[in-house]
Amino acid sequence: MAKKNILIIGAGGVAQVTAHKVAQWAGEFGELHIANRTKAKADKIVESLREKGHEMAFTSHELDALNPDNVEALLKKIDAGVVINVGTAFINMTVLEGCIRAGAAYIDTAIHEDPGKVCEAPPWYANYEWKRREDVAKAGITAILGAGFDPGVVNAYARFAEDEYFDKIESIDIVDINAGSHGKWFATNFDPEINFREFTGTVYSWQGGEWQENKMFEIGREWDLPVVGKRTAYLSGHDEVHSLSARYKDADVRFWMGFGDHYINVFTVLQNLGLLSEHPVTTAEGQEVVPLKLVKAVLPDPASLAPEYEGKTCIGDLVKGSLNGKAGEVFVYNVADHKDAFNEVGSQGISYTAGVPPVAAAILIARGVWDVKKMVNVEELPARPFLELLGEMGLPTRVIDSKGDHPI
Amino acid sequence: MAKKNILIIGAGGVAQVTAHKVAQWAGEFGELHIANRTKAKADKIVESLREKGHEMAFTSHELDALNPDNVEALLKKIDAGVVINVGTAFINMTVLEGCIRAGAAYIDTAIHEDPGKVCEAPPWYANYEWKRREDVAKAGITAILGAGFDPGVVNAYARFAEDEYFDKIESIDIVDINAGSHGKWFATNFDPEINFREFTGTVYSWQGGEWQENKMFEIGREWDLPVVGKRTAYLSGHDEVHSLSARYKDADVRFWMGFGDHYINVFTVLQNLGLLSEHPVTTAEGQEVVPLKLVKAVLPDPASLAPEYEGKTCIGDLVKGSLNGKAGEVFVYNVADHKDAFNEVGSQGISYTAGVPPVAAAILIARGVWDVKKMVNVEELPARPFLELLGEMGLPTRVIDSKGDHPI
Repeated sequence: MAKKNILIIGAGGVAQVTAHKVAQWAGEFGELHIANRTKAKADKIVESLREKGHEMAFTSHELDALNPDNVEALLKKIDAGVVINVGTAFINMTVLEGCIRAGAAYIDTAIHEDPGKVCEAPPWYANYEWKRREDVAKAGITAILGAGFDPGVVNAYARFAEDEYFDKIESIDIVDINAGSHGKWFATNFDPEINFREFTGTVYSWQGGEWQENKMFEIGREWDLPVVGKRTAYLSGHDEVHSLSARYKDADVRFWMGFGDHYINVFTVLQNLGLLSEHPVTTAEGQEVVPLKLVKAVLPDPASLAPEYEGKTCIGDLVKGSLNGKAGEVFVYNVADHKDAFNEVGSQGISYTAGVPPVAAAILIARGVWDVKKMVNVEELPARPFLELLGEMGLPTRVIDSKGDHPI
Repeated sequence: MAKKNILIIGAGGVAQVTAHKVAQWAGEFGELHIANRTKAKADKIVESLREKGHEMAFTSHELDALNPDNVEALLKKIDAGVVINVGTAFINMTVLEGCIRAGAAYIDTAIHEDPGKVCEAPPWYANYEWKRREDVAKAGITAILGAGFDPGVVNAYARFAEDEYFDKIESIDIVDINAGSHGKWFATNFDPEINFREFTGTVYSWQGGEWQENKMFEIGREWDLPVVGKRTAYLSGHDEVHSLSARYKDADVRFWMGFGDHYINVFTVLQNLGLLSEHPVTTAEGQEVVPLKLVKAVLPDPASLAPEYEGKTCIGDLVKGSLNGKAGEVFVYNVADHKDAFNEVGSQGISYTAGVPPVAAAILIARGVWDVKKMVNVEELPARPFLELLGEMGLPTRVIDSKGDHPI
């Protein structure tokens, strides 16, 4: 069987990682294509791949992915077998539509967003993605939603705990700590527009069998994690809560994001002044401006942080449950290093942890292990093949259980 | 001699005060005209004058004051004898040009600014206003620069100390403390664009016979002032330093502005993120936006603060000097109350202290006391008539000297 051609949509810091990982695992695929609204950014990734001396066919394309006709035409033109969508979260549904029409597998790393809405009714996946489940099944394609790190690997961590530790899950607490330092006065680790949008709306968590609503930074908890040590993380809204709560209805599902006081202060000022709003305001001169778009424009490009980024990230799931009535808990986690990521693929650690997993997913589709011909979230797929492959690809999984702290 | 018709240019919170004070002192003038870029705002002031039952002819006009032809035409049409310019600081030079052509007296309350430049070379008045001195003298009109509170009344305070206390001035420290509370999470007391522009550039002070350069919030000092008590004020750039340093070459001239930690934090975040810049940035969507214009658009309109504003302001000059070789010091000051200002003229205290003095200046021109037929800064004019009139108009002057704390 001919190897599948792979198309990466997007050309930011995550796409950079994804492209390099595909190139490192070139034997699993046919040609590599990279498409972006601004072709020059895709060209730059191709250039960086050539600098690393990879032997693979690379082609860049200009693509306005907000129009599904454009996506369909490109997919057919390049005979794409699998698409990794790491572009802005606003294009998920049009890219998925293109894949359905062209018969290509679809992988993304973040939930679809409508530019005009923040934090819609839970579960978020039901607002857009899950409405296309039947169409995806009918087309006979595999669509894997949220296959980055969080969401993505952390969903697999929950499934791993289910498969190998417990017959009953009581709670899943996902904790994301970035203990790295980028040396800038302030910056977000990924697209500021998406980053801030995560925190301006209602914080949804799944507790006691129903949706709980909180405000951002309302509930903080101190964690003591491997390598990064004691850190305060805050109950936050995040994609994976909205799919894990469907599979683990009887468990509490919470997401905790670590923030320093400086981040919280800057966020609070911007938020309270109305500068994180996605609704346009009119200046005295009559110009209509969306504040969040301007804030994005003045902040450092997350990709620009990579060369100076130092320190480590720790992201994991604390899963509590029981096996044959006996209670227990396990912490499933990964530690990544910003400097190592930069040296390997020219990106910082946050981009690295987000950009590697969709390539693992694409490989598992190509190998047939995950080619399920329907739409799934990551926790619906067997976890061990994914986590083992990620270990080979630079994101090893460790667990802390009754036997101590050890690799899976 | 017929009473002079008076034209107010601008229709913000300060213009509101100025208009009400003119109406209260209607006997000194002919007709009152108010002109603004947006006529509806001028109409609103006229309406508020009518509500107070003032008996005077009020007329509002639409005026684009950036074009001197428009200013000249309006001045001639309404036969204006004196113009109080309390519009944006960007129109000073075009309004002055209109006054020169039409033979009307000119009064403003803040230095001219070029939208594209912040903190030009000192002394600031030499960049624009003072270049027109000869033209003003040739036209035989009186032009009084910076006749608000600070600059304005504080310049007169320095002159008052010169006239009545010392034959040698050693230092003039102007201190501006607003101990009021507006109840908003954050707001500026006057046009945010002008407010922030004051603090984003170099802080110039005149010390040891030369210009000293500092950064904003670099040098703080605790003051213990009447009514408002102990407050921290920071060495700041301000108009009056740039004229007082010309008259008092051998004295140190410094301006201190009081700030709370909250203001400094918000300012620091906005400043460090680049959101106070007057230079356009381009968003990902290709829109060109001047960050400071957007910040202005999201902040509360300073005029909207008035109804809830409570507390007091204290603004004064600590002047040190000697008389016949004997050293001494005097603190010349005013305390104003936000609530009283609102009850009297519908504006908050900052607008009140800025908006009353130019009316006093206009009255002194009308009476001939200050009608000097040339361009002057306030310290070049006799201080006592001005301060006594201000006392009658709601801004009494007090002094703390060797005899204690008493009215002038």
